[in-house]
Amino acid sequence: MKGTRAQRLIGNAEGMDAVVIMNDGEPFLDSSFWYITEQPGGCFESCMAVVGPDGTLSVIVNPLEEESAKEGVGNVLVYHNKEERDNYLKEALKGCSKVGFNVHSATYSMVEYVKRTVEGIEVVNASDAIDNTVSIKDQKEIEATRKACRISSQVAKELPEMLTEGSSEKEIAARMDNRMRELGGTGNAFDTIAAFGANSSQCHHMPCDYRLRKGDTALFDFGTKYDRYCSDMTRTLFLGRPPEILERAYEVVREAQLAGIAEYRDGANANAADLAARKIIDETEFKGLFIHSFGHGIGMDVHQAISVSPRSPQILHEGNIVSAEPGIYIPGVGGIRIEDTVLVTKGGCEILTDFDHSLTVV
Amino acid sequence: MKGTRAQRLIGNAEGMDAVVIMNDGEPFLDSSFWYITEQPGGCFESCMAVVGPDGTLSVIVNPLEEESAKEGVGNVLVYHNKEERDNYLKEALKGCSKVGFNVHSATYSMVEYVKRTVEGIEVVNASDAIDNTVSIKDQKEIEATRKACRISSQVAKELPEMLTEGSSEKEIAARMDNRMRELGGTGNAFDTIAAFGANSSQCHHMPCDYRLRKGDTALFDFGTKYDRYCSDMTRTLFLGRPPEILERAYEVVREAQLAGIAEYRDGANANAADLAARKIIDETEFKGLFIHSFGHGIGMDVHQAISVSPRSPQILHEGNIVSAEPGIYIPGVGGIRIEDTVLVTKGGCEILTDFDHSLTVV
Repeated sequence: MKGTRAQRLIGNAEGMDAVVIMNDGEPFLDSSFWYITEQPGGCFESCMAVVGPDGTLSVIVNPLEEESAKEGVGNVLVYHNKEERDNYLKEALKGCSKVGFNVHSATYSMVEYVKRTVEGIEVVNASDAIDNTVSIKDQKEIEATRKACRISSQVAKELPEMLTEGSSEKEIAARMDNRMRELGGTGNAFDTIAAFGANSSQCHHMPCDYRLRKGDTALFDFGTKYDRYCSDMTRTLFLGRPPEILERAYEVVREAQLAGIAEYRDGANANAADLAARKIIDETEFKGLFIHSFGHGIGMDVHQAISVSPRSPQILHEGNIVSAEPGIYIPGVGGIRIEDTVLVTKGGCEILTDFDHSLTVV
Repeated sequence: MKGTRAQRLIGNAEGMDAVVIMNDGEPFLDSSFWYITEQPGGCFESCMAVVGPDGTLSVIVNPLEEESAKEGVGNVLVYHNKEERDNYLKEALKGCSKVGFNVHSATYSMVEYVKRTVEGIEVVNASDAIDNTVSIKDQKEIEATRKACRISSQVAKELPEMLTEGSSEKEIAARMDNRMRELGGTGNAFDTIAAFGANSSQCHHMPCDYRLRKGDTALFDFGTKYDRYCSDMTRTLFLGRPPEILERAYEVVREAQLAGIAEYRDGANANAADLAARKIIDETEFKGLFIHSFGHGIGMDVHQAISVSPRSPQILHEGNIVSAEPGIYIPGVGGIRIEDTVLVTKGGCEILTDFDHSLTVV
């Protein structure tokens, strides 16, 4: 990969003179701020990163963040009052008229502040340019994701031991989260889903007090962060033999996942993997029960902008990290989902998560 | 408290015909959406809550959230395409011209969407009106906060057992987080701070691999969520006798906290508590080393808009929940902070957290 991250971003920002990435107060923080500044930590509330026309990066921060900011890249400018902040911003945007913003991450208040402070600028939507930049991971990012995947994969391997009759969804989810932390994860990538029995037929079921019974499906969708990067995986198991229909569904999902993953490679259409998996499911008795997309981008946010769905117009590139997660959901009976985190490579892909994909009855 | 939450909000929204609370994609979700709709769960990405002039509440959601939405209050409107969504929004804002937005929480993209869709509206900053509404807690909210405080207080009591020579900040922070989950917490209120030795002199130190040594200060700032409500507390202990200067600082902080808490009551100026605590510290050898505010509001977000600081113009009200957290930070030596979560009542206040505040040497 050539140039700095800031240079690649401005190269992708067609028709823009500059790009401004801004945080408001917690939790309204834009992960691309950490991407572009390469900060390992810090809170950076109300801070701004400005990428100029030539790819120079100005990082405008308050004194609380001064020490943290120096651990990253860019020209760190510490303001002590509103006037200094305004002046740094004006200077960084000098001569720029079309200014790109991450409009789905910047608050209204922050964008209005920039418009008020720097006269005559036009707000341009830079979300696509930012998405296209962050979606291609460098070696450091891949390594962090690999570590996150290693941690959650270890927990996936321990799931059969955790599956005991009478345990609640909440209890097992808490144990999984604890294990990911013990193994070095720095926090959940998202709230762990543990869904037993018929609950597993709801894609986004939140763990409740339902207790595991013999014959239940047990679906776990979880991931950790490591150095800010996320893993995302799903393992579905059974406590005792499940209804036969779920065993059949399991095998179909497994086959569908393999068919989808076979389509992941640099230059492929992103929708190919979804269509290949969907074709397999729709040729069976489970037609129409794969009710979401095959995959999404993964990075510092667990959902990044790559969409692996039937009508996605996107092209996959080497360095993309995406999920591969077909599922079958039978209302009132149960759901099956199998998910891995996958790195797209030149000739194919590499599966970063690692667990036993065969039907597991505990 | 009179009326629904939506009615109280529109009552506080002076000069506004309506208030719109909006979520973009995760993590750009506004906690006041859950406050106003009284939803127990759900994700509610891209959903909107509109409070009309008479306090009616329209909750505009996509089909994924239909089931969740019905568990809350308001008129749930499920859209299946952009046109339906636009129409629900137009209908909810019919006849309104001055429309309030939570400008520090709504993304630029979402506010622009409303402006584009409903012609002729003027964007008004509703952040103060929303802050003033959510800052007065009802019994249900107080009960949830009480439970969160009970969980973190239990962990505070277990801290002396966790303090073993050679344990790293990261390790103890992970154990604390695990215990809060085991005790029924639904997730951290914020990233746990564990700061040993000289690291404790940085207010927002993030846990690192530093290992505890005899004579070290060990400062822990942590909290959990329960039913979406946060606790926030800090306990500072010592492994072995610390330098005498830190023992003196501990006693000063303790006294300062009591003096500040004594000022918490319905109708009091919010700055009184800060000034009372600061006066005590500034009359000692530690003058100038209390480098942050005495407190902040606590609710679904761990930092809500009440500011207990020297120049705060706010008045405290019965039902406010605030932190009480004086500190002394001696660069290169160590820091002391003691923090409780406190409920403001008619005649005074009630401390919701509960742990041994006396100097503890393990």
